[in-house]
Amino acid sequence: MCRWLAYSGDPIPIEWLVFQPQHSLIDQSLHSRMGATTTNGDGFGIGWYDGASEQPGLYRSVHPAWNDRNLRELAAHVSSPLFFAHIRASTGTAVQETNTHPFRHGRWLFMHNGAVREFPRVRRDLMLAIDPELFPELEGSADSEVLFHLALTFGLEDDAPTALERMAGFVEDVGAAHGVEHPLQMSVATTDGVRIYIARYSSEHDSRSLFFSGNAQAIKAQYPEDERLQQLTDETRVVVSEPLGDRVGVWNEAPESHLGIVQPGQDELRPFTPRRAAVGSAAPA
Amino acid sequence: MCRWLAYSGDPIPIEWLVFQPQHSLIDQSLHSRMGATTTNGDGFGIGWYDGASEQPGLYRSVHPAWNDRNLRELAAHVSSPLFFAHIRASTGTAVQETNTHPFRHGRWLFMHNGAVREFPRVRRDLMLAIDPELFPELEGSADSEVLFHLALTFGLEDDAPTALERMAGFVEDVGAAHGVEHPLQMSVATTDGVRIYIARYSSEHDSRSLFFSGNAQAIKAQYPEDERLQQLTDETRVVVSEPLGDRVGVWNEAPESHLGIVQPGQDELRPFTPRRAAVGSAAPA
Amino acid sequence: MCRWLAYSGDPIPIEWLVFQPQHSLIDQSLHSRMGATTTNGDGFGIGWYDGASEQPGLYRSVHPAWNDRNLRELAAHVSSPLFFAHIRASTGTAVQETNTHPFRHGRWLFMHNGAVREFPRVRRDLMLAIDPELFPELEGSADSEVLFHLALTFGLEDDAPTALERMAGFVEDVGAAHGVEHPLQMSVATTDGVRIYIARYSSEHDSRSLFFSGNAQAIKAQYPEDERLQQLTDETRVVVSEPLGDRVGVWNEAPESHLGIVQPGQDELRPFTPRRAAVGSAAPA
Amino acid sequence: MCRWLAYSGDPIPIEWLVFQPQHSLIDQSLHSRMGATTTNGDGFGIGWYDGASEQPGLYRSVHPAWNDRNLRELAAHVSSPLFFAHIRASTGTAVQETNTHPFRHGRWLFMHNGAVREFPRVRRDLMLAIDPELFPELEGSADSEVLFHLALTFGLEDDAPTALERMAGFVEDVGAAHGVEHPLQMSVATTDGVRIYIARYSSEHDSRSLFFSGNAQAIKAQYPEDERLQQLTDETRVVVSEPLGDRVGVWNEAPESHLGIVQPGQDELRPFTPRRAAVGSAAPA
Repeated sequence: MCRWLAYSGDPIPIEWLVFQPQHSLIDQSLHSRMGATTTNGDGFGIGWYDGASEQPGLYRSVHPAWNDRNLRELAAHVSSPLFFAHIRASTGTAVQETNTHPFRHGRWLFMHNGAVREFPRVRRDLMLAIDPELFPELEGSADSEVLFHLALTFGLEDDAPTALERMAGFVEDVGAAHGVEHPLQMSVATTDGVRIYIARYSSEHDSRSLFFSGNAQAIKAQYPEDERLQQLTDETRVVVSEPLGDRVGVWNEAPESHLGIVQPGQDELRPFTPRRAAVGSAAPA
Repeated sequence: MCRWLAYSGDPIPIEWLVFQPQHSLIDQSLHSRMGATTTNGDGFGIGWYDGASEQPGLYRSVHPAWNDRNLRELAAHVSSPLFFAHIRASTGTAVQETNTHPFRHGRWLFMHNGAVREFPRVRRDLMLAIDPELFPELEGSADSEVLFHLALTFGLEDDAPTALERMAGFVEDVGAAHGVEHPLQMSVATTDGVRIYIARYSSEHDSRSLFFSGNAQAIKAQYPEDERLQQLTDETRVVVSEPLGDRVGVWNEAPESHLGIVQPGQDELRPFTPRRAAVGSAAPA
Repeated sequence: MCRWLAYSGDPIPIEWLVFQPQHSLIDQSLHSRMGATTTNGDGFGIGWYDGASEQPGLYRSVHPAWNDRNLRELAAHVSSPLFFAHIRASTGTAVQETNTHPFRHGRWLFMHNGAVREFPRVRRDLMLAIDPELFPELEGSADSEVLFHLALTFGLEDDAPTALERMAGFVEDVGAAHGVEHPLQMSVATTDGVRIYIARYSSEHDSRSLFFSGNAQAIKAQYPEDERLQQLTDETRVVVSEPLGDRVGVWNEAPESHLGIVQPGQDELRPFTPRRAAVGSAAPA
Repeated sequence: MCRWLAYSGDPIPIEWLVFQPQHSLIDQSLHSRMGATTTNGDGFGIGWYDGASEQPGLYRSVHPAWNDRNLRELAAHVSSPLFFAHIRASTGTAVQETNTHPFRHGRWLFMHNGAVREFPRVRRDLMLAIDPELFPELEGSADSEVLFHLALTFGLEDDAPTALERMAGFVEDVGAAHGVEHPLQMSVATTDGVRIYIARYSSEHDSRSLFFSGNAQAIKAQYPEDERLQQLTDETRVVVSEPLGDRVGVWNEAPESHLGIVQPGQDELRPFTPRRAAVGSAAPA
């Protein structure tokens, strides 16, 4: 339904990953191999951190990524040590900027591949659980925007892993209450500009594809001819919906029902277990 | 904040009213004289009834009306006995098609000039009162979309005048509960394709401008040189945010706090009185 | 590179052919089977004749056809006895409305699938041959817009088949002068609202796919369950870049290097032979 | 018809000049005081130099500048020592990115306020004079794009002042040959990323408004409360279609028929005199 990419490491021009690889995100917008749809042409977005402000920059558009000249310009001129990029394939909701990823709240970014199943049926209950203080930020109609604000409601800014697990559990609870069989399907990433939290989870335990570069060595091996990439430090990490090239071996598949943390020092990988709570008690007092 | 136009009468090309008059809606998009803003360039929409289907046609865009070539084409090629046209000046919410008017539900259209004051503060409470069956239709972030769905919740399809009064009363109640001084400002129009219901009301009793053509005689007098308009029958009515030309005398100002009904036979004009209900009891059981 | 559809017959809603068939033009915008590209998402256009004016109506957009809600509305509400529909896959030129098909001049429409090879090299010479009276109409950068205006220059409005042959010959001459191997690749359609002229030709005699419905019988056989289509008269013709459904047998492939004329009474099919003229003598005196 | 701004000096965020001043370019997009039109809502563009590449970055859009969220993001996140910003009011040509300013060629940017009078009549002759090597770069239908490519043809990259004067003379010659009374009206700026060349000229010697900040002292005096601006060095220059605030005294009006050069060290100001050449001999051999 969508494809995305997250980068952390030395500052690099966004185009190095979004445009230049053989099976770049731009190529995936036309020829996704592992996605639910071949074409991901219903808008796109990039979010990046730089020294300009606390808040990351955001460029989102309803155009297909492959033919947006402004994206090409920005990707060539903006360098960042941590950025998200996302291409969208709508599952029916409106093609509008406010439905494109990444979503932003203060320092945080959030992007999602997957779906809240039968979203029209459960949407109202999910929205009611969102912290009233956050409610005015909702601008679109996408399930992903609701997921993000649920995670924020459940404490994303204080304890991201737990908040994501509570979010998943709550969506499954509400779905179950409405008789939805497999309420949640997601490969998500969220970040505060320092750490990137990634979760691959679905109620049916058959989640959207997700891969990560074990370390910079892998990336260097993938592109031996690219002198620039050879200079990357070992802290460099790339997480992608599908590998950026054919040498699939250098990419590790994220394990089903796991959460990863890309951070300075040692990264983490741990099981992801939705935390169930009685519907109604989910919203903060 | 916005400008709009509603037409009922013999089928005419939409361009006759939207493009051709001296101070047409297109001219108002650049040079509004009576609006809260001079420029109304944050998208537009037209909705029209024809024989093609039960549901009216809808063309909405985020572009300024004055430079959208497709609007010019449609206005020249589509004729209709009843149509709405609206140009938007956003008060801060996103410029996206789902925030442009008219809004549609089944056979019904709705458009609005004005604002729910301090909408971010009251939005959640207003949305909670919307019939859960209607909730999935919400796609944007505009106050007007919420007003329409509140009116539908309060029975618009069965008794439009009462539903509009309940909607206004409810918005004022919720606003009051949040300490908003003058919660509602509106000049609205809604129709089922047969009758057009128009209300001019604001909590401070100082509502946005609204004018109507008393009858076709007035329109003919306004454009004596236009042979086509001379053929209009007496059933013809035009309701506008501001007059389409300088001969202001042929336009009647809609009285403050009144509701009008344009319909086959005798039109109606009656006081508009918001119906107050305790907050919480507003939503259908 | 593109896909298109031309219809002539009893007035029908545009959606009957553009949206409703199994492999409709909308489906082809995501999943073209015979096109040079699978995805045709770089804008689209429809042109239609009705009683509103001499000039056909035109709706063109840079959005992908599959996610444009306005196209869906128009296709449902506009009926026409003769219409063109086109979805674009850019070969590099800008994605802008003025590069989308169909192009219009007075009563005439024109659309094209294919390419003028090495267009940047030959563009200037081709443009210089366009009648100076027509030159101001050029608004974009697409080869197809130039082809149309060359055809007009060569007398399209008086003798369409000859003008198309002269256009093709001229493009081949200019290409040859610049050392371009196979200068022209095209499946084109043009119409004055009465007759539709279709040509399938390429310098290498390996032209883009093109099919036509032999007669209404074929369409009826294709959709026996569609009561509406069963009412079509024998004058009905549909010409398409690729069949609208799997029963390929009811579609006839247009022969290579041929020109067809869909018209009241007997249609015509004849060889298409580019007419060569010395470069420089091509423009009217 | 348009409004623009050019900045040279210490690197600053683009928003400091485009968004934050009292009568910023964004304010001018809705409320121009000195322009030919009050509203400049037919697209906009920014071009900026940074260390990322030889070529300046470009962000151009058909949306009104005042409601484009991406522009706000970029302006906040991109800092540059030399940037152009332009808001467009179309005089009839298509609203498309390829008609928005600044235009780019290699390291060069170009933007224009004004018009080539009766452009449809002279356009072909002007385009024919463009160097055939540059011809493929033409993508739109705006007179300004043609002016830029004429200046390039006449040697802009080698001797900008002379090239601009030859361009103006050529446009006046071609206009005169077509019987156009006052063929050229322009306030233009062009830059190679080091020097900015500005010309204020019109055939009737009544050119569009143009102002420049004498030196950084003036800007500091204009915004004494802005601590950031107080740090600007004396090399800082801002050139604008109209002053960014009410303290008009700190802005100097560019004299009629003059060319200015903003450059490291001493700026220059000299008379601007179109150089006439016989039509036909203008294009390079």
